[in-house]
Amino acid sequence: MAFPASRFASVLRIAGRRYPASRVGLRCDHPVRSFTNSPTWQIRTKEMNDDLLKDLKVNQGRLMEDIHHTCQWGTGERWGDAPTETGMTRLALSDADKAARDWFVSTTEALGCKVTVDAMGNTFAVRPGLRNDKPPTFVGSHLDTQPTGGRYDGILGVTAGVEMLRVLADNWTETEYPVGVVNWTNEEGARFPKSMVSSGVWAGDIPVETAHNLREVHPGTATMAEELKRIGYLGETPASYEAMPMAAHFELHIEQGPLLELSNKKIGVVTGVQAYKWFTINVKGRDSHTGTTDLKSRADALLTAAKLILHSHRLATANCALASTGILNLKPGSTNTVPGSVTFSLDIRSPKDSTVAKMTEHIMHDFPKIAAGEDVLDSNLGCTSGLPLDVEIVEDFSSPATNFHSDCISSVRQSAHHILGPNSHNLVMDMTSGAGHDSVYASKRCPTSMIFVPCREGVSHNPREFCKEEDCAMGARVLLQSVVRFDRMRDERRVSWKQEPYTL
Amino acid sequence: MAFPASRFASVLRIAGRRYPASRVGLRCDHPVRSFTNSPTWQIRTKEMNDDLLKDLKVNQGRLMEDIHHTCQWGTGERWGDAPTETGMTRLALSDADKAARDWFVSTTEALGCKVTVDAMGNTFAVRPGLRNDKPPTFVGSHLDTQPTGGRYDGILGVTAGVEMLRVLADNWTETEYPVGVVNWTNEEGARFPKSMVSSGVWAGDIPVETAHNLREVHPGTATMAEELKRIGYLGETPASYEAMPMAAHFELHIEQGPLLELSNKKIGVVTGVQAYKWFTINVKGRDSHTGTTDLKSRADALLTAAKLILHSHRLATANCALASTGILNLKPGSTNTVPGSVTFSLDIRSPKDSTVAKMTEHIMHDFPKIAAGEDVLDSNLGCTSGLPLDVEIVEDFSSPATNFHSDCISSVRQSAHHILGPNSHNLVMDMTSGAGHDSVYASKRCPTSMIFVPCREGVSHNPREFCKEEDCAMGARVLLQSVVRFDRMRDERRVSWKQEPYTL
Repeated sequence: MAFPASRFASVLRIAGRRYPASRVGLRCDHPVRSFTNSPTWQIRTKEMNDDLLKDLKVNQGRLMEDIHHTCQWGTGERWGDAPTETGMTRLALSDADKAARDWFVSTTEALGCKVTVDAMGNTFAVRPGLRNDKPPTFVGSHLDTQPTGGRYDGILGVTAGVEMLRVLADNWTETEYPVGVVNWTNEEGARFPKSMVSSGVWAGDIPVETAHNLREVHPGTATMAEELKRIGYLGETPASYEAMPMAAHFELHIEQGPLLELSNKKIGVVTGVQAYKWFTINVKGRDSHTGTTDLKSRADALLTAAKLILHSHRLATANCALASTGILNLKPGSTNTVPGSVTFSLDIRSPKDSTVAKMTEHIMHDFPKIAAGEDVLDSNLGCTSGLPLDVEIVEDFSSPATNFHSDCISSVRQSAHHILGPNSHNLVMDMTSGAGHDSVYASKRCPTSMIFVPCREGVSHNPREFCKEEDCAMGARVLLQSVVRFDRMRDERRVSWKQEPYTL
Repeated sequence: MAFPASRFASVLRIAGRRYPASRVGLRCDHPVRSFTNSPTWQIRTKEMNDDLLKDLKVNQGRLMEDIHHTCQWGTGERWGDAPTETGMTRLALSDADKAARDWFVSTTEALGCKVTVDAMGNTFAVRPGLRNDKPPTFVGSHLDTQPTGGRYDGILGVTAGVEMLRVLADNWTETEYPVGVVNWTNEEGARFPKSMVSSGVWAGDIPVETAHNLREVHPGTATMAEELKRIGYLGETPASYEAMPMAAHFELHIEQGPLLELSNKKIGVVTGVQAYKWFTINVKGRDSHTGTTDLKSRADALLTAAKLILHSHRLATANCALASTGILNLKPGSTNTVPGSVTFSLDIRSPKDSTVAKMTEHIMHDFPKIAAGEDVLDSNLGCTSGLPLDVEIVEDFSSPATNFHSDCISSVRQSAHHILGPNSHNLVMDMTSGAGHDSVYASKRCPTSMIFVPCREGVSHNPREFCKEEDCAMGARVLLQSVVRFDRMRDERRVSWKQEPYTL
């Protein structure tokens, strides 16, 4: 690891403040202690009291530079005049994604990390600690985006991880255990239609063959395995929590909803993720001519789909749940042909597994009835009865409600309150994530929690997605301190319990 | 024109029956009269009484052979076991369309026609008559199909025209005026999204530049002019009723609806075409995350589109009209993103212009209200109020109700009753066409009518579209006789009125 001249500024700044005796002699050339990761004048996380923790500040300008630098790969739709006021369109395993991955690898290697790529292209950059026989404490998120995504979803989490590595290096901080940053592959599920698929493989929930054979959405035809190979990210390490164990997983993310902004909070301590299910609905009617087929003689698959989509929304309203359709394709697709075939996606969510189960029951029960022409909650109000249609409901994906680990939640909560100071009770709130994240799968195999920061109007999966610079930096600082606190706690428990609590 | 040996069979058959004196000497070698189109032993249409007209029979097997022979180009989805039990997918100006066009040109040329291709690729095959200074009486339809179309829509009309030429040749019949068959380009509007566009240019209703610049529907990008040129059908003759005048236009077509079949009729005498309008509806909302955006904070363009499509159906029900959506595209198209943008087609029809106008008024009035979140006729029943959305309504196309010409209607009606004999009052009905046809544009510039034959269950724009062989042949026979009757009438009027009634 090279020592660029700029490091000394940090060192001097830090040296001028309240550091313990072991830090005296910082500018001398003799080794005082011999640490694994770095030269002799290091500070160990276990030596850090709360005051010293406060000094571990992220460099806001540098973090933003990393975010926007990586957004040169897959720059999307422009929404404002400033150079960074564009969205992102960086689909997983595209050339743009490869470029961002290459940056991640070279940057973390330059920061002294050992980089491992697994069979799903998940990329783990590990910075050695004192006890490298134990699994690292990880920070993770993803660099892929939606087709019309923004600059913060996923990207903030990974770049904040890189910033963590930079701050630890700047401050010559030695962690008790290794720490790492992971970039998970195809979290969005936008190109290969299974979200969080690669953390799912890592967690052992999704067979690697299933993931490798996932075919990209229309109009492409490539599989994940083909694209991993093509861009050089089909690693030899098995994609598995056994091959790459984690002591913990922390993830910083924009909220992607309006709650923090509406309540003027700065940090969301994420205690869990709501349950959700994804369905594919196939409606089969009959193609017919729009001009010659009277309404009674039609089996109009799109009219039926419209009724079903509206019904799913009514069910969501009645059950305080969410129902959304993001994809709809029809055949044959001609102005003067009534479509005989429609396929659409349905995404059902609720913080409670029981509500998702209830919604599913309603859908399974009501959709075939509506398609057959029966009236369900006034679905036929003012309509002409046509011919009966068939509907097929396929459950593609189910993610039960997730509860994060109390140790990780505590690390985040303590860090947030510590950093935000006396007024922190007004600025920090516990919350449930509405979206799925790789942390959901991570939490199946190691203690996990997440940190949310506000994003403008709650808008996400949209080019206009925006998070203020100070909020990005605040989130990154809470992330960093959470990792350090967790590292410190691991050591404390080891001493007091005579064991490493999170060995897998 | 060559004289194939097979001709003599026809001649002998015909000669053995009730032909006028001028036909005696049929087998001698001297010219008795000198006709334009054919040798000396011809029969003129003006010499044909009703009995002779009855003898002009189409060859059912040959007609079906032509239909199925041309369906080798663009064969579509299979629905049955027989070799001909497939649909068609022959988009306008595709390679398959070129092959069918080439067949049309070479076949009609071999039957003694002069073929002219105009600037829209409309292909006119004209068989000379006695008075070639006057416009031909045309039979026309189209060889292009829907992406999942059948073997009869359009194809029957053109092949019946070719069969007319064959029967006239077989029977060595001389028409008073030239007769022709026209294959109109892109009638379906399926590939280049303007139906009947090329007869529209011919009629002077659509500028040729507009038509040439029409771009094919997603995912292709070619224009009509590019594709006309590519397949060699960008003719030098202007696409215009002035450059290629018609004395009349007759079109045989499957009904594409269930009325003939339901009432056990054999021939529909088409007196007009219902009015219709095509719209493009653009709904603008906001992309947002399906998991993190509560229902109130959404501007869900697909949910709104579902309400609008359902509303258009309710309006159609209330007004005894038709409303149909055949195309719907959304963005960005990801399971976990609420779509911010939806575009869909809307096709409104009624036999009355006033009803289409009323429907249009309702749509213009109600759609923006529904998009803005207002309740219109319980459109919000059981829904959560979200954010307001914008809607843009573009009228792409308007075709007022068409009334065909009484002379052509009479020709068809007389022919149908004449052919179907004593029980014909039970087998022939007047009707209005639900679909647009090239006859709509033709009728703006010349007397026009259509002949409908039943199709199974009224199914059309569907691979399973089916018309019985005897019904195809019956329609072709009515078509042929209608043309002969019209040709005879032109001559009668010329004699009695001392003028050609339909000179343009």
